Amino acid sequence: MRRNQVSTFFLSLQDSICRALEEADGKARFREDPWKHDSGGGGRTRIVQEGKVFEQGGVNTSAVEGTLTEALARRLEVKPQKFFAAGISLVLHPRSPMVPTVHTNLRYLELENGDFWFGGGADLTPYYVFEEDCRHFHRVWKKVCEAHKSGLYARLKRSCDEYFFLRHRGEARGIGGIFFDYFRGDFQPLFAFVQACGGSFTDSYLPILQRRRRDPWGERERRWQLHRRGRYVEFNLLYDRGTAFGLETGGRVESILMSLPPVVQWTYGFTPEPGSREEELVKVLREPRDWA
Amino acid sequence: MRRNQVSTFFLSLQDSICRALEEADGKARFREDPWKHDSGGGGRTRIVQEGKVFEQGGVNTSAVEGTLTEALARRLEVKPQKFFAAGISLVLHPRSPMVPTVHTNLRYLELENGDFWFGGGADLTPYYVFEEDCRHFHRVWKKVCEAHKSGLYARLKRSCDEYFFLRHRGEARGIGGIFFDYFRGDFQPLFAFVQACGGSFTDSYLPILQRRRRDPWGERERRWQLHRRGRYVEFNLLYDRGTAFGLETGGRVESILMSLPPVVQWTYGFTPEPGSREEELVKVLREPRDWA
Repeated sequence: MRRNQVSTFFLSLQDSICRALEEADGKARFREDPWKHDSGGGGRTRIVQEGKVFEQGGVNTSAVEGTLTEALARRLEVKPQKFFAAGISLVLHPRSPMVPTVHTNLRYLELENGDFWFGGGADLTPYYVFEEDCRHFHRVWKKVCEAHKSGLYARLKRSCDEYFFLRHRGEARGIGGIFFDYFRGDFQPLFAFVQACGGSFTDSYLPILQRRRRDPWGERERRWQLHRRGRYVEFNLLYDRGTAFGLETGGRVESILMSLPPVVQWTYGFTPEPGSREEELVKVLREPRDWA
Repeated sequence: MRRNQVSTFFLSLQDSICRALEEADGKARFREDPWKHDSGGGGRTRIVQEGKVFEQGGVNTSAVEGTLTEALARRLEVKPQKFFAAGISLVLHPRSPMVPTVHTNLRYLELENGDFWFGGGADLTPYYVFEEDCRHFHRVWKKVCEAHKSGLYARLKRSCDEYFFLRHRGEARGIGGIFFDYFRGDFQPLFAFVQACGGSFTDSYLPILQRRRRDPWGERERRWQLHRRGRYVEFNLLYDRGTAFGLETGGRVESILMSLPPVVQWTYGFTPEPGSREEELVKVLREPRDWA
């Protein structure tokens, strides 16, 4: 059964990613909270807090059954009906402002009417721009996309820039990556692509983490990070479809909102100094670049 | 002209409230940012930061003209058309967890088709429950409502409990107050009620501020406050219609989001100790009480 294949893959991916992240952090250990969904299924939330590198983060899997709410059915342009949704979702907020925040998500949805699709992506949210990091991240995802289908990367890169965009700020959330949704067609090649994405996460992120983890930083950089984390919160609560879907379908609130950063600041009128490295980031977020 | 009467009142109310708050704080001074709206009109944002009592807050007025976006017109069940909107909006985040956060808003909307209405309210978000504070706040608002119309307080109190509710948490944002919207009818009595509301803000809040400002607190109480402020952010970004209206109509982002607290924490799985004063608050937020 397709849904079992997918769920099993997400669970084993969660295991291997958590192992790799614990090893990279050197101190952090994930703790697990298994939970059940009201209408069937459940999830395995794994949280890391107060690590050497990771201030807070989570690697969560879930596989739930339910009935589409009217609002969701309308958005999907189908009648209210039963659905099955499985996914893995990962957000890591490092303590150092020199190490970027990263997000990855892979998901599978199946409706009672037989329709099914995959969605997902990966994107990076640095606080300071290091060109080689941005290039590395994008190149890994380009390779995965192009192995699946020529020209795919350009499309998914553009989708990512469009999706992770804060309209009210005129800024991207970060330097992007890839984003896809409603990937329909033959199950096997699509599933193979999703497996390849899952298998590439550590390659895309850990080299950056290792390169930046010992970079010096102080109060100024921390202040900037806390300010930028505010934008992360704004995006997730104002725009993110996954957050809205989870909260609307009665998902586990703590597991959904583990994507929010541990400490955040909003300061009225806070703007970076002209010519500073902070301003450099804002410029990059206002005009998405071709990194790969 | 109605719109001039209302705008003039909001501006003078802003002056008198800011004076009273500066005096109460003893150190803080509001700084003013005037701004213009793309499609006509503008606002007067007044911000306080790093006061003796107020960590951050704002008392803003605006009076803008524009054309309803399709989404807004649909929500109001009218054709897209020109509108005029004026309002005063106030949010104060004190540093001390013993002093509650307070929010007040009064607004006036006028459509090209001749329809007009008032909306507004006031609500209190304490971090610890002091019964006499809650009773005081509600009694002030009850008096204002009952002077306008017998039975009005009960209705607006219930609307407030319903509006400031975080469905995903099953919690109210605070201990409520009053909330009203689409107040239509004869202009003069409605405007008189709105003026009475504006004039009652300082009575409703300053006695509480004075009573609590010297109460001792430490790291534990601060931690709890930062955690609860996360709920404030969740409400404002996920549910608040005013925030959505402002961002959708191209309002000034910094003025709209000044409602967000200056420092916030999200900690996975954070729960108050059984029997603690922190747990007492959560119980109150889960079951709205009759305070007046």
